[in-house]
Amino acid sequence: MPVISITLLPGYGSATEQRLVQRVSRTARSVIAAPAAGTTVFVTHASTYQRGENAVSGGGPAVPDASELVRTFLGLMQARDLAGAARHLAADFVMHFPGSAPMQRLEQLLDWAKPRYRSIAKTYERFDECWGEDGTVVYCFGSLHGVWLDGSPFQGIRFIDRFHITGGLIVRQDVWNDLAEARPTPS
Amino acid sequence: MPVISITLLPGYGSATEQRLVQRVSRTARSVIAAPAAGTTVFVTHASTYQRGENAVSGGGPAVPDASELVRTFLGLMQARDLAGAARHLAADFVMHFPGSAPMQRLEQLLDWAKPRYRSIAKTYERFDECWGEDGTVVYCFGSLHGVWLDGSPFQGIRFIDRFHITGGLIVRQDVWNDLAEARPTPS
Amino acid sequence: MPVISITLLPGYGSATEQRLVQRVSRTARSVIAAPAAGTTVFVTHASTYQRGENAVSGGGPAVPDASELVRTFLGLMQARDLAGAARHLAADFVMHFPGSAPMQRLEQLLDWAKPRYRSIAKTYERFDECWGEDGTVVYCFGSLHGVWLDGSPFQGIRFIDRFHITGGLIVRQDVWNDLAEARPTPS
Amino acid sequence: MPVISITLLPGYGSATEQRLVQRVSRTARSVIAAPAAGTTVFVTHASTYQRGENAVSGGGPAVPDASELVRTFLGLMQARDLAGAARHLAADFVMHFPGSAPMQRLEQLLDWAKPRYRSIAKTYERFDECWGEDGTVVYCFGSLHGVWLDGSPFQGIRFIDRFHITGGLIVRQDVWNDLAEARPTPS
Amino acid sequence: MPVISITLLPGYGSATEQRLVQRVSRTARSVIAAPAAGTTVFVTHASTYQRGENAVSGGGPAVPDASELVRTFLGLMQARDLAGAARHLAADFVMHFPGSAPMQRLEQLLDWAKPRYRSIAKTYERFDECWGEDGTVVYCFGSLHGVWLDGSPFQGIRFIDRFHITGGLIVRQDVWNDLAEARPTPS
Amino acid sequence: MPVISITLLPGYGSATEQRLVQRVSRTARSVIAAPAAGTTVFVTHASTYQRGENAVSGGGPAVPDASELVRTFLGLMQARDLAGAARHLAADFVMHFPGSAPMQRLEQLLDWAKPRYRSIAKTYERFDECWGEDGTVVYCFGSLHGVWLDGSPFQGIRFIDRFHITGGLIVRQDVWNDLAEARPTPS
Repeated sequence: MPVISITLLPGYGSATEQRLVQRVSRTARSVIAAPAAGTTVFVTHASTYQRGENAVSGGGPAVPDASELVRTFLGLMQARDLAGAARHLAADFVMHFPGSAPMQRLEQLLDWAKPRYRSIAKTYERFDECWGEDGTVVYCFGSLHGVWLDGSPFQGIRFIDRFHITGGLIVRQDVWNDLAEARPTPS
Repeated sequence: MPVISITLLPGYGSATEQRLVQRVSRTARSVIAAPAAGTTVFVTHASTYQRGENAVSGGGPAVPDASELVRTFLGLMQARDLAGAARHLAADFVMHFPGSAPMQRLEQLLDWAKPRYRSIAKTYERFDECWGEDGTVVYCFGSLHGVWLDGSPFQGIRFIDRFHITGGLIVRQDVWNDLAEARPTPS
Repeated sequence: MPVISITLLPGYGSATEQRLVQRVSRTARSVIAAPAAGTTVFVTHASTYQRGENAVSGGGPAVPDASELVRTFLGLMQARDLAGAARHLAADFVMHFPGSAPMQRLEQLLDWAKPRYRSIAKTYERFDECWGEDGTVVYCFGSLHGVWLDGSPFQGIRFIDRFHITGGLIVRQDVWNDLAEARPTPS
Repeated sequence: MPVISITLLPGYGSATEQRLVQRVSRTARSVIAAPAAGTTVFVTHASTYQRGENAVSGGGPAVPDASELVRTFLGLMQARDLAGAARHLAADFVMHFPGSAPMQRLEQLLDWAKPRYRSIAKTYERFDECWGEDGTVVYCFGSLHGVWLDGSPFQGIRFIDRFHITGGLIVRQDVWNDLAEARPTPS
Repeated sequence: MPVISITLLPGYGSATEQRLVQRVSRTARSVIAAPAAGTTVFVTHASTYQRGENAVSGGGPAVPDASELVRTFLGLMQARDLAGAARHLAADFVMHFPGSAPMQRLEQLLDWAKPRYRSIAKTYERFDECWGEDGTVVYCFGSLHGVWLDGSPFQGIRFIDRFHITGGLIVRQDVWNDLAEARPTPS
Repeated sequence: MPVISITLLPGYGSATEQRLVQRVSRTARSVIAAPAAGTTVFVTHASTYQRGENAVSGGGPAVPDASELVRTFLGLMQARDLAGAARHLAADFVMHFPGSAPMQRLEQLLDWAKPRYRSIAKTYERFDECWGEDGTVVYCFGSLHGVWLDGSPFQGIRFIDRFHITGGLIVRQDVWNDLAEARPTPS
């Protein structure tokens, strides 16, 4: 065991339902030490459903995949398409970067980067997702490589990004990295 | 909807079952945009269960709460009870700290800290948990305060810790912080 | 709670299933003091079903809505379409009206009315349905208005009708009203 | 079919659960023309339940049987225990009797009866219950017997009572009968 | 898949429920080519159950294990405890043995054996059970060993017994064997 | 009770599902003494299913009906279509007949028959199926009729065949009959 039966109204695609059973299986095993092979999860469809005084005609929409959203945002940022990236931000978006006050606009990030490096790119080791009451948090971490202001290259510098997503938009980004540990001491 | 029915063998405590229904409710809502009030999760007990050729007499044990494990570990580290803290580490434990090679033993952490600060403590803003195929990842972040090597105090320095837990033991810790951004330039 | 799962063979229309979940929700709340929002009812479809020695190929038909049947009957009576109204009566139909022996035929009603009023019509306040082992009982009540035999008008005279319906036909009608209370004393 | 599974938190007595399965069986058969023998209803217990953000520790209480409440009230009225009967009335209770304005207090009923009969009692033919969104309605009907003001006896006079019950209290009583049809004409 | 949920009233022992889930798992796999590890069967308990017009207070009894019954009967026969063995026979019991008319009483078997062998015993290779609409059929087969009438021993002679069991009693026994193939030709 | 819910992935035909519910109903009644009319079995479809780490896209295939397979095989043998019959045999097929060593090939059967009878045919009384962990066993029994070597006819000679089927092929056939009991003594 456990055996988990999920009853949904029809209309969600197969990919959404597979995401659901996979996540619920993992979640159950975070509480009960059952092997994956002993954890059964399935979706069945209700044809009619009522909660409250009236029958409900359709379920809530599928939630966009938060990690995909973050990958899209990071790709747009990497391509310096700030306008495209900004379309994924909530109105009250805020970001925290090392050694800086909270920033609200992506353009501020360019000012933050200017005294730090000439160019930068990320290699991702892993994405983690946390499913919470107030939205989904996506973590990704890995290493940075790029070129310092003095033209010398760097690589293998650790970083981690945290994105808090609610209603399909990023409301907060937190970034930590070892750039300050690693940057060449101005001589 | 959704309506989620979880069938378990009896014997898990009420706290474990509540943890399970709460997590499964959140997880479902990470995929389907249902309100919490429209997401019904319940546990029923099977009296007899068979998968494979023989009836199963009992379910797997409850998994210890990963965030609690991390809080306990962090408390022991804060109290410099390295022996106590080490009891929560897997045999192949490894930790990554800013500006250092991977470390296997907690004692190495003292060497890492020595050239960086005289004392340090953490204020936690939030814990996040990610329930994955290969264990649970706990993130906690917040701010550091303490005393630099020159005796001057510091506070409000951002940090984040990542703990990967499998089988009730920490297999990996990753730490990022802004200490290098913030530390006084040796003059 | 409660969570109520109804398994049906497919083929009932959406309106029938909605009637079913709505009625079952109400019925459950007549026994358990759960709020409507905390009472979940849904229909799922069985693709194959067996009770007894053989698989069943189809479910019983939907039962016609008893209140609708009564409204139709009352409309036909109001329009003095006795033949049309009689098509909704069972072979052993009987009706009880104030101050009269039981009547079997709708025509007898005209004789009953003749010494009482010149014309009459009903305003309905509410319909109630009782779902019983031996069929459904429909009550409707409200007020009568019309013209007395002496040509003076009346209105606001209370009435109640009770209809017992089995197998889609009315087997019994009982009528009470305040006509006798209210009618002009012959001077 | 249908097969109806009702999941409840434990703690309701056996009588309450039997009332529930019996009523739900009847209700289902008011919509689907299934034989009683082909209508399966059962209660299973959830050990843990969550709707909304937190696990629920107990279900709503059992609703008192509305027909029993009405029988109790009618017995107290028959015994002229007006104080006892009044304990079953809601604060905004109102009753409608033939040939009278709406009354709020049981004492008013004595004034209503005074010019009508010396004594009265009821023989019940049947109780009907309607399970609605706004409470349960109980109907009972049968015949009245008693003594007219002139000392002559009467019997077999039809009556019907309607009681609307919400939250375990009677909020409205409506009474119809044939007393006016039947009473001796003052000579 | 399949996932099979069996709802029972409580009160059956654990052994009965294990017999049930094991048999149902096998039966499902006789129709669907699912691996045993992918076939999930579990029992949950209903606290209240209604089919027909009234709630049911208890389930039918557990059926005695038919193979056990046959083993017991065969043991008693082997020990020539005919009275004990006869207690497991239905009133209309009949048995068919090679080269004999149908027999109703176990004593007739002694007459059948007399011209055939001096003594005999069975070695069982396997028991098979068939679960049918009209009871359970138990087959057992293996080899016979014993002593011929002329005092010479025999062994390895194939046999098969078929027992039809209804209501906990054997209603029919059919026996086939190779005794006639193997017996010494009278010279 | 019992009420048995079988959840399958869609795609099995109606005949397969009916076979499944009928067999499961019988099997349940081999353990619980419930009447057929009180044993409810139904199939519902899962739209998505996961056991182990990944969602499963389709169920195992339907298992061919073992009794049908045996009837087909017996028909081909009766028609002496040995090649056709052999297509239903597993590579390690073995058969045991009275008075013979185990045989692997159907042709050996002709040699076995030659000294026994000139022709033979079967009348079947009944087929039984046993659903086991290692495949399905089919028994059929009845009577043989044919012509002895001396040209005289025979009939009413009891026989039983046992077929063990795994993976849609016959792995073993065992035959017992009373031919030796009945055959004319060579004079």
